[in-house]
Amino acid sequence: MRLLTVICLLAGLAVAPVARAEDGHDLWLRYRPVEASAGYAPAAIAPVADTPTLKVARAELERGLAGLIGAPSAQADRVILIGTPESSPAIARLTLPLKAAGDEGYLIRTVTVDGKTTTVIAGNRDVGALYGVFRYLSLIQTRQPVDNLNISDAPKVKLRMLNHWDNLDRTVERGYAGQSVWDWWKLPDYSADPRYVDYARANASIGINGTVLNNVNAKALSLTAPYIAKAGALADVFRPYGIKVYLSARFSSPIEIGGLKTADPRDPAVKAFWKAKADEIYKVIPDFGGFLVKANSEGQPGPQDYGATHVDGANMLADAVGPHGGVVIWRAFVYSHEQPDDRAKQGYSEFKPFDGQFRDNVVIQVKNGAIDFQPREPFHPLFGAMPKTNLGMEFQITKEYLGFATHLVYLGPLYEETLRSDTMAHGKGSTVAKVVDGSLDGRKLTVMAGVANIGADRNWSGSQFDQANWYVFGRLAWDPEASTRDIAADWARMTFSNDKRFVAPVVDMMMGSRETVVDYMTPLGLHHQMGRSHHYGPGPWVSGGERADWTSVYYAKAGPDGLGFDRTATGSNAVAQYAPPVGACFADLKCVDEKDLLWFHHLSWDYRLKSGQTLWDGLVTHYSRGVSAVDAMGRTWAGMAPYVDAERHGQVTDFLAIQKHEAQWWRDASVAWFQSFSKRPLPAGEAPPPHSLEYYEGLSFPYAPGI
Amino acid sequence: MRLLTVICLLAGLAVAPVARAEDGHDLWLRYRPVEASAGYAPAAIAPVADTPTLKVARAELERGLAGLIGAPSAQADRVILIGTPESSPAIARLTLPLKAAGDEGYLIRTVTVDGKTTTVIAGNRDVGALYGVFRYLSLIQTRQPVDNLNISDAPKVKLRMLNHWDNLDRTVERGYAGQSVWDWWKLPDYSADPRYVDYARANASIGINGTVLNNVNAKALSLTAPYIAKAGALADVFRPYGIKVYLSARFSSPIEIGGLKTADPRDPAVKAFWKAKADEIYKVIPDFGGFLVKANSEGQPGPQDYGATHVDGANMLADAVGPHGGVVIWRAFVYSHEQPDDRAKQGYSEFKPFDGQFRDNVVIQVKNGAIDFQPREPFHPLFGAMPKTNLGMEFQITKEYLGFATHLVYLGPLYEETLRSDTMAHGKGSTVAKVVDGSLDGRKLTVMAGVANIGADRNWSGSQFDQANWYVFGRLAWDPEASTRDIAADWARMTFSNDKRFVAPVVDMMMGSRETVVDYMTPLGLHHQMGRSHHYGPGPWVSGGERADWTSVYYAKAGPDGLGFDRTATGSNAVAQYAPPVGACFADLKCVDEKDLLWFHHLSWDYRLKSGQTLWDGLVTHYSRGVSAVDAMGRTWAGMAPYVDAERHGQVTDFLAIQKHEAQWWRDASVAWFQSFSKRPLPAGEAPPPHSLEYYEGLSFPYAPGI
Repeated sequence: MRLLTVICLLAGLAVAPVARAEDGHDLWLRYRPVEASAGYAPAAIAPVADTPTLKVARAELERGLAGLIGAPSAQADRVILIGTPESSPAIARLTLPLKAAGDEGYLIRTVTVDGKTTTVIAGNRDVGALYGVFRYLSLIQTRQPVDNLNISDAPKVKLRMLNHWDNLDRTVERGYAGQSVWDWWKLPDYSADPRYVDYARANASIGINGTVLNNVNAKALSLTAPYIAKAGALADVFRPYGIKVYLSARFSSPIEIGGLKTADPRDPAVKAFWKAKADEIYKVIPDFGGFLVKANSEGQPGPQDYGATHVDGANMLADAVGPHGGVVIWRAFVYSHEQPDDRAKQGYSEFKPFDGQFRDNVVIQVKNGAIDFQPREPFHPLFGAMPKTNLGMEFQITKEYLGFATHLVYLGPLYEETLRSDTMAHGKGSTVAKVVDGSLDGRKLTVMAGVANIGADRNWSGSQFDQANWYVFGRLAWDPEASTRDIAADWARMTFSNDKRFVAPVVDMMMGSRETVVDYMTPLGLHHQMGRSHHYGPGPWVSGGERADWTSVYYAKAGPDGLGFDRTATGSNAVAQYAPPVGACFADLKCVDEKDLLWFHHLSWDYRLKSGQTLWDGLVTHYSRGVSAVDAMGRTWAGMAPYVDAERHGQVTDFLAIQKHEAQWWRDASVAWFQSFSKRPLPAGEAPPPHSLEYYEGLSFPYAPGI
Repeated sequence: MRLLTVICLLAGLAVAPVARAEDGHDLWLRYRPVEASAGYAPAAIAPVADTPTLKVARAELERGLAGLIGAPSAQADRVILIGTPESSPAIARLTLPLKAAGDEGYLIRTVTVDGKTTTVIAGNRDVGALYGVFRYLSLIQTRQPVDNLNISDAPKVKLRMLNHWDNLDRTVERGYAGQSVWDWWKLPDYSADPRYVDYARANASIGINGTVLNNVNAKALSLTAPYIAKAGALADVFRPYGIKVYLSARFSSPIEIGGLKTADPRDPAVKAFWKAKADEIYKVIPDFGGFLVKANSEGQPGPQDYGATHVDGANMLADAVGPHGGVVIWRAFVYSHEQPDDRAKQGYSEFKPFDGQFRDNVVIQVKNGAIDFQPREPFHPLFGAMPKTNLGMEFQITKEYLGFATHLVYLGPLYEETLRSDTMAHGKGSTVAKVVDGSLDGRKLTVMAGVANIGADRNWSGSQFDQANWYVFGRLAWDPEASTRDIAADWARMTFSNDKRFVAPVVDMMMGSRETVVDYMTPLGLHHQMGRSHHYGPGPWVSGGERADWTSVYYAKAGPDGLGFDRTATGSNAVAQYAPPVGACFADLKCVDEKDLLWFHHLSWDYRLKSGQTLWDGLVTHYSRGVSAVDAMGRTWAGMAPYVDAERHGQVTDFLAIQKHEAQWWRDASVAWFQSFSKRPLPAGEAPPPHSLEYYEGLSFPYAPGI
């Protein structure tokens, strides 16, 4: 046997000598051969019903098994049976307890059929079986036993969506992974790009069931017939994978492409335009998901342009898509040009009064925090505050404010921190997760959306580790209470290696990486301290310009007296937007977590932190700790070389070097800036910034990506 | 043996079951296993000297042999010996006749060394050996015997260059293959992207030895220290492959990044700026190739802004890079805003008077034709007209005017037509090729440049067949007199299949494809009839706007009386810019080739073509013939399915369908437009355009790529 293996290996070399490129394109669906010692037995696949979704489920199972343990063979002792009771008499006969699986869940059970050990992967609908197949393969990918399975699982959130901020010219707003994956120019005529299928496979593997194709800063053109056809071609590709297509709708479209003089949502002609537009779309895309709308925010048009309200706007659109089963997802990321109030308060102020007034097929999509996807923000006060409204979560997967693609930051802990925050809306245990999954107030139309980090780069997300952020987002959308440490481990195993000498240190590194970026960018509750417009690198000195709440100084409020934004009753009183016990804690220096300190309080440079350090010394210590932690990540990763192919290992190594350099830059520039106010010496052992403040202020970055 | 093979194949399937994606990324370096019947014997590679270039030569040989016929093995009967006499005593002992090989050529010979059959691949310099390795592998790739070789080859042109019109924001002007391959943002810190190496391999395999990284519409920023470092990182990757890096230089850089008030080339401070800038660049890139300059053309700054001449500008820059061995490539694509003269005449008028005045390290780079990369143009009158000047050729590889990436057009015949044109400068046989290779006037510094069609798309060039245009350009730059039919065959064999049932029809299809696009876009010498600005689709009605010579009507001059641009003595007299016998022929209706008819003549709609048809009838016939020919290409390709993998076959099929649709559109829109002047009925059997002229004129294409 040994000799034969050698001969075959040599022959194999002769036949296919060029190693498959390990460029990360396979993502976590990297079905490489399992070591024989793991002992997985070959399997046969029982006949599968001939539906589009079950066909792709079967194909995925074949592909996965062939890659992992060898091609399915009719001669194998074990059988895998996939499908639904409806389409498979064999499954129907098993009378499985499928009720809990709902529309999209599945059961995986080891049973005996005709004397043969059979793994049945069943759903009530085809897509459940597809999800089950991915789950089954992941068990082998993560080296879990599959001999005697009894798994039941179903998603807790109804709409698990990616929001692509992709423009029609293939640029991606806040995208750091190359061009848009959508080649609009060649669509709909060329929709056979294998990348579209791989995109659908990856999403289905983590349960994502919706994708908004175009930027929320939308063009009306995307709702014209040629672009509807393009979206339709993508919808056709995605449909077998259980993924619906949505479009961002520009509110002023009735004027721009409808020939009307107004977009007032109360105007009958406007209503008729949107009805007709919805009818037109559903003719091409019968399962079109609906519209995502950014209205009256950052210059986008909206109902307020006509004295109408967000309710008027959202409900009007909801009435257009409702008859077709569509939804309207209306963003709460709204802050007024006119209102001089603390920007953190404006979303709540705008939407809270409308609770209960939106149609059943409207979802208000709220960012995790009240400012904008910062390295750390307290949870948005709207969560728990609108019990009679469908409230969706919007996370950012792309790292606009967290180092773009070249900083290794696993976002799981950020997401988890928000989801596990307790709104106290109905007393203890009223977590954000329970708002998002609808259980807190018994809501059925639930949404978790992630702003995608996907582009045409070969590795999809611009770096290897950013793939983990796509992955963890999907897993949390399926179950907002899942452990992001467990998810990190699954991802690391599926993507790189099951060797425990790899998994343990890499998961630790991932789990710590978010606190690290907070430390070197915006420790102790600081926020919005990045460079103007491109949001790259430190810019604590950013001031002036179009509006105060787009500057750094507005948020840090550094002065000779101290640092931080007073959001207590003596300041903007944003704390009052939270449930009383939560707000009281945020306002109380003895209760508030120091991670949120300067978000809620303006404090003297000499304020004593729990560590005993002054605020100034503690601030500097945090920055430096962040830099050291990146150094440590580099050392950890250097030790992973034995477990990772050279190509991916090298890329991560190079990116960690960039991150090290930039973490240092963030620390130095921030220390130089804040020292100009604190006028205090650096703590002992802290090196002074190597350049003058003017040097850091003078750096410029034309052609930064993602703008 | 047969059983063993089956066992191994099964085992191989179990180990590496997922087929390598046939996405075109491998280009013509697709080293797939040769059928055993071809009888290539395994080989050993003799020890190779440890230089950067010989290391990559050896790696390529190993990779190629491993893919094609099995990994090199020390036990093999045949030996391959690569290197130079200088670095290899074994090669030195052979006393090969390497004189003709020059600096970059090679010898491939079968000899006997120590009783062993040895294939020696030798150059005077390492790069020659590298080129020889690629040639040797191509012999196997195209199934030619390698048992008894005696090949000597050397490039006829000194600088064989790609010009990338790549912008610093990663857009590509006139690029139809996605973003720029240069990820400026991550350079220089991340230069390990395997794509950079694959780019260098592909270029070296066809002898390209220079690349201009940035757009001729240049930004001064590209000459600042951070961008020089980025270019330097790429130069380091490319150096082992014999490829030098060049930069497009913005003439006004002394003002924009040098703090000067002028860019006057006669100003001492300006001269000092460029000297210092050259010194700075050469410190980072010791083998920097030099500058490419677009000056006083289409709004770009230049010496004329200060009353100085092209000679002043070019020579000043030449003096800056000259001491470092650099060159200045100065584009002759110049036409004045002020001059109302026929645009086709302006390049000649501007440059001809300066013959003999440029420095030895200046090359004037002339586009193949006098307008701008049209589907067909007569050769540029500057060829042959500046015997005392280094005159380089600029071809366009990207298909700005030939259907972008989705029309199948093999450009070999276009290049060949120009290169074989006889300028008659020194009598018969004074071909453009002999101007380009320097032999006509004994010039040493020769250039052939191609405007690249390369982008970050997985298949590099936006389509499978556009790879052939990159390939044929390189092969012609090596030997401007090569047969583009032979080159097409090599490419088709290396890229797809050696099956003669594939090669013959596909080469025929490729060779006819250029005449086809001429037929459906601009037959009989018509030119510049495309849509405004994006240059996509028909736009014969384009008129008005910024300048007349950016419109279609300026060039077609359609009227009730007829069609065409009179460039004879009764018109612009552009014919006088050619050598007398050439110009006389162009001017003579009895002599001029009908393919150039309307380029030189304005003729009545009733003018009799050689076919006996009237001009109007013939024009319509040409358009329709183009459409039919695309149809035929579709049928040919459909029959190629047995010889091509499904992924690439499907993509080409889908693109041919797009081309069919768009060829019809070109025909219909053009016929509708010109019929509004000719007022004549269509020839019998010709279908009227299905839409009104207004319909065609009303089509718009926002977000067309490449602008």
